[in-house]
Amino acid sequence: MNDRQKLEHLVSRVGPPDAASREAARLRLNSLTKPRGSLGALEDLAAQIAGIRGETIPSIKDKVIILMAADHGVVTRGVSLYPQEVTRQMVLNFAAGGAAINVLARMAGARVVIVDMGIKGGLPSYQGIVCKMIDFGSADMSAGAAMSRDQAINSLLAGAEVFENELANGLDILGTGDMGIGNTTSASAITAAMTGKAAREVTGRGAGIGDGQLDHKINVIEQALAVNRPDPADAVGVLEKVGGFEIGGLAGAMLAGAANRIPVVIDGFISGAAALIAAGICPQIKHYLIAAHLSAERGHAACLKQIGLRPLLELDLRLGEGTGAALGIFLAECSINLMREMATFEGAGVSDITREVTL
Amino acid sequence: MNDRQKLEHLVSRVGPPDAASREAARLRLNSLTKPRGSLGALEDLAAQIAGIRGETIPSIKDKVIILMAADHGVVTRGVSLYPQEVTRQMVLNFAAGGAAINVLARMAGARVVIVDMGIKGGLPSYQGIVCKMIDFGSADMSAGAAMSRDQAINSLLAGAEVFENELANGLDILGTGDMGIGNTTSASAITAAMTGKAAREVTGRGAGIGDGQLDHKINVIEQALAVNRPDPADAVGVLEKVGGFEIGGLAGAMLAGAANRIPVVIDGFISGAAALIAAGICPQIKHYLIAAHLSAERGHAACLKQIGLRPLLELDLRLGEGTGAALGIFLAECSINLMREMATFEGAGVSDITREVTL
Repeated sequence: MNDRQKLEHLVSRVGPPDAASREAARLRLNSLTKPRGSLGALEDLAAQIAGIRGETIPSIKDKVIILMAADHGVVTRGVSLYPQEVTRQMVLNFAAGGAAINVLARMAGARVVIVDMGIKGGLPSYQGIVCKMIDFGSADMSAGAAMSRDQAINSLLAGAEVFENELANGLDILGTGDMGIGNTTSASAITAAMTGKAAREVTGRGAGIGDGQLDHKINVIEQALAVNRPDPADAVGVLEKVGGFEIGGLAGAMLAGAANRIPVVIDGFISGAAALIAAGICPQIKHYLIAAHLSAERGHAACLKQIGLRPLLELDLRLGEGTGAALGIFLAECSINLMREMATFEGAGVSDITREVTL
Repeated sequence: MNDRQKLEHLVSRVGPPDAASREAARLRLNSLTKPRGSLGALEDLAAQIAGIRGETIPSIKDKVIILMAADHGVVTRGVSLYPQEVTRQMVLNFAAGGAAINVLARMAGARVVIVDMGIKGGLPSYQGIVCKMIDFGSADMSAGAAMSRDQAINSLLAGAEVFENELANGLDILGTGDMGIGNTTSASAITAAMTGKAAREVTGRGAGIGDGQLDHKINVIEQALAVNRPDPADAVGVLEKVGGFEIGGLAGAMLAGAANRIPVVIDGFISGAAALIAAGICPQIKHYLIAAHLSAERGHAACLKQIGLRPLLELDLRLGEGTGAALGIFLAECSINLMREMATFEGAGVSDITREVTL
């Protein structure tokens, strides 16, 4: 099989979630000692995960955050607050356990899998870091395609391969995270391309640029869109033209998650852009995605709306790395543990007036 | 000291939070390897807790949820979906570990302290349950005051006593929770009294009553307000006239939390009504309160707005018991652990361009 055929095969494995398990979870939730529906979004989450896993009360034991990093050629255009070397510096910080994602992953009991999808200059050591480098960073999208079509497909397949390796190590729920100086520029271009919105509507301040630099960033994105003319009907082409290697890797991991019936908790704006690519390739994937939070970064709401996802949290996070996904994984585990550990009305001898009323 | 003097003394112990510790926490947050402010509400939370504790990086080790239960005389008016005996049944379910709060408290690593503030008929056994019963349930507020003024003050002092006993056992952060069939009726009456809003604007479906019963519930609340004429300038009087023993107990625990410089994570609508009483007695208390979530129960938003609190979560929860508070405690611990465990720019060798720009 060539790479295009491998991608098609991966997509063909994504089926619908299991409606019977989802309904059985709803019945179970209604039998528990609480007013019906009173756990709100946590009940929806439990039922969604049951449908994904095809079990009434699935197990969430092994929690994994795949954190993909890459560099972006468009950074030479001065779109970012931080210098490009911060991508590498932060990846080493992740490996040393000192970043926000390390702290929040510990709180959620998740392991973090760090992946180099294409850091400029590579890393001095790959101890504790998976190397899936596609190239030493993408090309400047404002002057042409960010990568070749082969590289786009390779980044998707590499992401799927990382996922499937981790599945073999134990993985019941996936969180996605990103690192890459310049990647909000790419994510904004993807969002504009996939939603049809103007660049200005979906471009924000990233790490915190001021008004002048924001205007410049919007101009650069408009140039990239004008030069490349990405076609929303060809999501792989959008990735090729204005994407990034970590975004392709995350989209591939999401596809592999869905193909393996694993719930995928997506993080903020970069993961949202990756989800737009994945949903463009395979619309069915939306049933497998859980939007952890609404980012403070402009453009994220448009991503989620386009896919049809409602975020669990709105905490004005705009860090990436999978920080919001770690919190989402915690909520997902809460929802499943409620279903498993709560007493039923009958078991606890509590009067279930709603059941009587319904009969 | 008589009871009124004891309450005055408790209130006099509530001072302002420590601005220097809050600012030191902000500086610490800005030195960590992430764009400034990119952890959004979690940064605000960490700074607030630092100010409350008077330490830059406070410890959150012992997490406690105080869950207060009582019955309400107004239930005889047919305002609730469930029969009154469910209060007792659920308290026994809490003690057996089978309720939603038990599951979520385990997830947050918090211990649950169950308190009988006035369950009708009492309990067969107080194994694992604190007895602070003020009376066998409150009186029907639609026919007169729900309790005497002495009982209102006693419920506040009993709540403070429960808190201070638990403080001696180790308590770094408090969550509040409630159980009491009929208590959304009381909470709605308190909210109407304290905010000046019409009963209809702040009355919801509780455990899930239909339209006809909702109209009846609103009529009963209007009667209670007309009969009792609660004065918002006299919060103890509002508690006396339309309150409940668990609501008084929770307000007292909140006051004691603030007096002891402990952050208090308030749960949903019933805890919100208790916070309105506590803030009426001691406006300073708002600095010590963390609103865990916005409940789906109508009226809660008005409570939070009146006090000046912004909820962390909006998950359409409407269960009470402290379920939202447990999730809020988890976020609070996340915020503090980020401050303690993250590497600094300098320590991790990451370029801090924002610092250079600022200099």
